[in-house]
Amino acid sequence: MKAVIVVGDGMADRPLRKLGGRTPLEAAETPNLDEIARSGVCGIMDILSPGRPPGSDVANLALLGYDPYKCYRGRGALEALGAGIEMGEGDVALRGNFATIRDGVIVDRRAGRIDGTIFKEYLSDVKLDAYQDVEILVRPTLGHRLVVVLRGERLSWRVSDIDPHKTGVPPLKAEALDGSPEAERTADILNKLYELLREKMERHPINRERRERGLPPANAIILRGAGAPPRVKPLREIYGVKGACVAVTPTVRGACAAAGLDLYDAPGATGGVDTDAVSKARVAVKLLSDYDLVYIHVKGTDNATHDGDVEAKMMVIEKIDDLVGYLLNHVEETYIAVTADHTSSIRVREHVGDPVPIAIWGPEVRMDDVDAYSERLCARGGLGRIRGVDLMPILMNLLDRVERFGA
Amino acid sequence: MKAVIVVGDGMADRPLRKLGGRTPLEAAETPNLDEIARSGVCGIMDILSPGRPPGSDVANLALLGYDPYKCYRGRGALEALGAGIEMGEGDVALRGNFATIRDGVIVDRRAGRIDGTIFKEYLSDVKLDAYQDVEILVRPTLGHRLVVVLRGERLSWRVSDIDPHKTGVPPLKAEALDGSPEAERTADILNKLYELLREKMERHPINRERRERGLPPANAIILRGAGAPPRVKPLREIYGVKGACVAVTPTVRGACAAAGLDLYDAPGATGGVDTDAVSKARVAVKLLSDYDLVYIHVKGTDNATHDGDVEAKMMVIEKIDDLVGYLLNHVEETYIAVTADHTSSIRVREHVGDPVPIAIWGPEVRMDDVDAYSERLCARGGLGRIRGVDLMPILMNLLDRVERFGA
Repeated sequence: MKAVIVVGDGMADRPLRKLGGRTPLEAAETPNLDEIARSGVCGIMDILSPGRPPGSDVANLALLGYDPYKCYRGRGALEALGAGIEMGEGDVALRGNFATIRDGVIVDRRAGRIDGTIFKEYLSDVKLDAYQDVEILVRPTLGHRLVVVLRGERLSWRVSDIDPHKTGVPPLKAEALDGSPEAERTADILNKLYELLREKMERHPINRERRERGLPPANAIILRGAGAPPRVKPLREIYGVKGACVAVTPTVRGACAAAGLDLYDAPGATGGVDTDAVSKARVAVKLLSDYDLVYIHVKGTDNATHDGDVEAKMMVIEKIDDLVGYLLNHVEETYIAVTADHTSSIRVREHVGDPVPIAIWGPEVRMDDVDAYSERLCARGGLGRIRGVDLMPILMNLLDRVERFGA
Repeated sequence: MKAVIVVGDGMADRPLRKLGGRTPLEAAETPNLDEIARSGVCGIMDILSPGRPPGSDVANLALLGYDPYKCYRGRGALEALGAGIEMGEGDVALRGNFATIRDGVIVDRRAGRIDGTIFKEYLSDVKLDAYQDVEILVRPTLGHRLVVVLRGERLSWRVSDIDPHKTGVPPLKAEALDGSPEAERTADILNKLYELLREKMERHPINRERRERGLPPANAIILRGAGAPPRVKPLREIYGVKGACVAVTPTVRGACAAAGLDLYDAPGATGGVDTDAVSKARVAVKLLSDYDLVYIHVKGTDNATHDGDVEAKMMVIEKIDDLVGYLLNHVEETYIAVTADHTSSIRVREHVGDPVPIAIWGPEVRMDDVDAYSERLCARGGLGRIRGVDLMPILMNLLDRVERFGA
């Protein structure tokens, strides 16, 4: 037996006046999600605990079966893992932006959304005179984004951001958050690294050119979200399963990489509302011949929510429905679980702490009376109300992969 | 007010194709269980946590209200307690088999299912020269089974098995599992004890006789499942209740003994599918005049599951139904809780991690709409989804026995 988990990012919502008191999931046409609910067992799930909104990083760790309160150590390392960088115990990673600074003040946190990959070679050999023993990796990822990894002795992820998260102000100084000598040392490394990169970027010829063309130069790198890799055992070690991930979002890929899943792309999958979701299903079905578990994440529902665009959210939900339809038509001896990594409110335009719907379809599940997939109908289902960390053991139990406790 | 808990061992199951998508509980005729559900309050229960299959030892500790993750210290001590042997803090017990060894290799792990009680006297005075300070109790129990208890200073239950759990190989050496000097010492005691018993059994006249008759001699004792008594307070101390247990299975009797319940037999109750379950109800009803709580365990459903015999499982379920029918007709001012200690899959022939149904019948319970007793119908009940350790406080609360927390 095998399993596929389909996660719609922030897919769950609250009933909306503009939808006549329905949620986007209730208002969208979702015959395939409804089939999962009708022939499966349903429930609602608090990703963390009732009322607590999770970040994407924490939410996907929970869905992979890890208690974020025990394992989570910042977002940076997940971004690095998601970018395909290996992280060892003791390493510290941050994510960051190429930014524009003028008269000591940040004027554009994205340097005109520059494509930073042009600096990849230029930034491939960064060293600090004062910290010769620390290996520094600066890796542009997507658009104006990048990841920095520090490798060496006595580093700590408990340091504050250099990115002030707004314009019109100078960059911040990284500071130790816990007063430890390791955090003091790491903060000093980051502040010296900021100065070094500031100078190095200022003199890059592309920036001279951009200034001449009236474009904001990428003359600073502002870092945030320091993190160490989450303290988790790979799913392979816990359950003996071989897992794969089909996702675009770096944090989700990072959480999956931490869980020991292999990372895959799907042609046409963009991480936006324009994504080709069925393409992910096609890749997943192929992977199932070689893997026990495939984790599919669709980001677009979250983007639509942050934009407050209910039509776009419903459209992405219908794409997820198509994805699930493709799975239903192409898998055998496989469980399909459909859920969201958190509820997002179109009105608030943010993650909220309401539970998400969960439905599990496959052989021998205890089918209940729920006949459509939605936040409210799933609440009547046979799973009752569970937690995010329960999903993985529930699925692995169906796959006969959970070790017995006791004799 | 009083309470009876009826536990069908592995009674819950998954929907089965050969029963038209019903579970054995759904397919069996269970008018009395249905009455409990109809006039009671229902729910589903994760004995440990969602998806985690429990062993019988751990499961019954949980149903008695004890968190196995905190109190469980191996199965051996429960077996010893179940055999009526008192266990003190610091004692270590193992269960074992009379076995047949030839040319250094185990050829029969049960010595032709010999009745080991014939060796009771012969094994009543075992001492190791090297460990004069350690009291050693060797007690044949049922069939080829026995229990060994070590009493003395600096013992540990963190030692591995001598029983290799298969034939065609030599017995194993007991080894320390945690590297502690206590475990090293205990492993050495067990290895020396193995040699002593090997020699002692070899020269027993019965074995000479068995060889002559072509029967496998009981010429070795192979031990497994070292354990210390669970770290629990008797229910009497926690809730002020006087409790009794009506069960055959040694581990279940052991868990009940650890909880301070008095152990009772019922005539005709065998621990198998041929058991007289109503006999247990008769004993329980008599005990209720003297006890506040009676814990009844019926083993047969589990045996049938391990044999993959769905008809036998349904037959034992119907016996449990008769048992509950007798209770309904003969108790007054008494709560009846009916549940299983784990779900067992007839297909997998093993314990699985799906939740079990629970129904509580009696005065003033919050009756719900559930009108029959099954895994799926109980999921709609008023108790929602609870944990194994919740059952005892829920019942004791109905008996007004739970201490208030706070002022």
